[in-house]
Amino acid sequence: MKNVNVAIVGATGAVGTKILEKLVERNFPATSIKLLASKRSAGNEIEAGGNTYIVQETTPEAFEGIDIAFFSAGGSISEKFAQDAVKSGAVVIDNTSAFRMDPNTPLVVPEVNPQELKNHSGIIANPNCSTIQMVAALKPIKDQYGLNKLIVSTYQAVSGAGVEAIDELAEQSKQFANRSEIEAEVLPSASAKRHYPIAFNAIPQIDSFGESGYTLEELKMINETKKIFSDQNMSVAATCVRLPVVSGHSESVYIEIDHDDVTVKDIQSLMENAPGIVLQDDPASQLYPMPLYAEDKDEVFVGRIRKDLDNPKGFHLWIVSDNLLKGAALNSVQIAEALIK
Amino acid sequence: MKNVNVAIVGATGAVGTKILEKLVERNFPATSIKLLASKRSAGNEIEAGGNTYIVQETTPEAFEGIDIAFFSAGGSISEKFAQDAVKSGAVVIDNTSAFRMDPNTPLVVPEVNPQELKNHSGIIANPNCSTIQMVAALKPIKDQYGLNKLIVSTYQAVSGAGVEAIDELAEQSKQFANRSEIEAEVLPSASAKRHYPIAFNAIPQIDSFGESGYTLEELKMINETKKIFSDQNMSVAATCVRLPVVSGHSESVYIEIDHDDVTVKDIQSLMENAPGIVLQDDPASQLYPMPLYAEDKDEVFVGRIRKDLDNPKGFHLWIVSDNLLKGAALNSVQIAEALIK
Repeated sequence: MKNVNVAIVGATGAVGTKILEKLVERNFPATSIKLLASKRSAGNEIEAGGNTYIVQETTPEAFEGIDIAFFSAGGSISEKFAQDAVKSGAVVIDNTSAFRMDPNTPLVVPEVNPQELKNHSGIIANPNCSTIQMVAALKPIKDQYGLNKLIVSTYQAVSGAGVEAIDELAEQSKQFANRSEIEAEVLPSASAKRHYPIAFNAIPQIDSFGESGYTLEELKMINETKKIFSDQNMSVAATCVRLPVVSGHSESVYIEIDHDDVTVKDIQSLMENAPGIVLQDDPASQLYPMPLYAEDKDEVFVGRIRKDLDNPKGFHLWIVSDNLLKGAALNSVQIAEALIK
Repeated sequence: MKNVNVAIVGATGAVGTKILEKLVERNFPATSIKLLASKRSAGNEIEAGGNTYIVQETTPEAFEGIDIAFFSAGGSISEKFAQDAVKSGAVVIDNTSAFRMDPNTPLVVPEVNPQELKNHSGIIANPNCSTIQMVAALKPIKDQYGLNKLIVSTYQAVSGAGVEAIDELAEQSKQFANRSEIEAEVLPSASAKRHYPIAFNAIPQIDSFGESGYTLEELKMINETKKIFSDQNMSVAATCVRLPVVSGHSESVYIEIDHDDVTVKDIQSLMENAPGIVLQDDPASQLYPMPLYAEDKDEVFVGRIRKDLDNPKGFHLWIVSDNLLKGAALNSVQIAEALIK
């Protein structure tokens, strides 16, 4: 691919705008960038890198001449238009959950399983935000010491639920300060029957409920982690919780490795040398990752690394990253960069 | 004890005021209630149950004639004055960490280990807030099915760090709304060298750092849980995180029991019949515990009960309670009630 014509479906959304920003910032060799969205948003102007882009309606014909199409407008839009893009000759990089568990669709984090990119049939899936940052940090540990068991509890930002959720948190915070009634219409998810305030609260529901009492977000983390690591024997568990944080997912992760003689320093040194990972781990100077400081950063931040006090094969980590960047837009653009290499 | 003369040390603090409220609300048979605090607060008036109490300075002599002395003014105050209270003939119910791990001091949650109350030598310790709600919920499970392993990640409210932290969260939320600079002076702890904003953030540090990279809060949860359950062989791990929530600690808890044929319904039915526990667990109607709704409630709320998908002996629970009530003031008053029974 020399002349790369790019389309972004869902270009007006929280992730879509970040994809455009990252393409510009990283000098992605795009001959053209086409912004697609719903009919309602068509005609809107978006500025980036000194250029003005006019948003167009997503139609089956919109993908003619497109080489790479980023999809980030929800699963139903991907299901509706991804095959049109593929038929037009584009490679789809899909940021929704529509195709992630399809056995014919690679699910890729470039630092973790770039080899899977060879096997696509037109669609490459971008994993769930909370999964990406976790597997990026755990990959070097799995390679070096094995990884049998993983239990994660998440602390997720509202931006993962879109622009409306960010606005809702801001509005509720003001309502709280003014002692007026708190209105909740977006979270835990727009399609949910009941909505709860997120300001000054923690909601243990992300996405809707699936089988066995798990939420779809929890099942995504479990199933996607096993698929990305190509390891169905790994034990993976997740509890996903939404917090009053704007951007930046945090994760309390417990792992069990194969060896019982590994030290905290061993894990720290792996993190220091891992691509895209920044070690922030110095209790004496109160250095540890926090979502407020991860916002707008590309990296995955890892700290609070501790050896379990009862199990010599157990370790605890605290992993934080901007869910809109490495968790979504950046990872998608990195997939595109790997494709055209 | 027929005529019970009560003192509250730290009566002007977040927990001290709740102890007074609970004594009044529960008709504790107190002949007199003496409010003690620092010299700075002496002379302040506090109203409760239609009475006005005048705060007095805490001195060794202040405990004369006192039968039960609640201490909730920080570990150093307990270390300074608890023995004076004991020498005056009072039983001390200490809400600080000063004596919790002392082998001669019972560490009591009345629903869990009331038998320990018989063995005190003048001081009874009230466990850490995050420990109390967890052991209260897990006790019936441990009794029925055994409990070998426990991994908890906490989502803790600022009220656990005192009135100053509550004020700081409110102030920072306003600063954020006004786009003015965020000032941080209290959290993660007043004595810390560095302070970080809590509004729209998550801080993975509660209390200062101890051995092996663990915070004192994490070590409290680990050591106190083993002591309360009288089980040093149990594997216990904790990661403690402070959130922008006013009151109400939440906990994502993973447990491993002895049996592999236990169902979610079995655990739910234990919770329904446990004293002080309220089961809130119905995914279909989005019923689960949340800190915003646990505020000012006495009970411990349990939901999101799931069987681990890979380990038939593993279960996940979400446990929420008001950290100032069952986590502190209420548990202290319940200890006093058990003592005078």
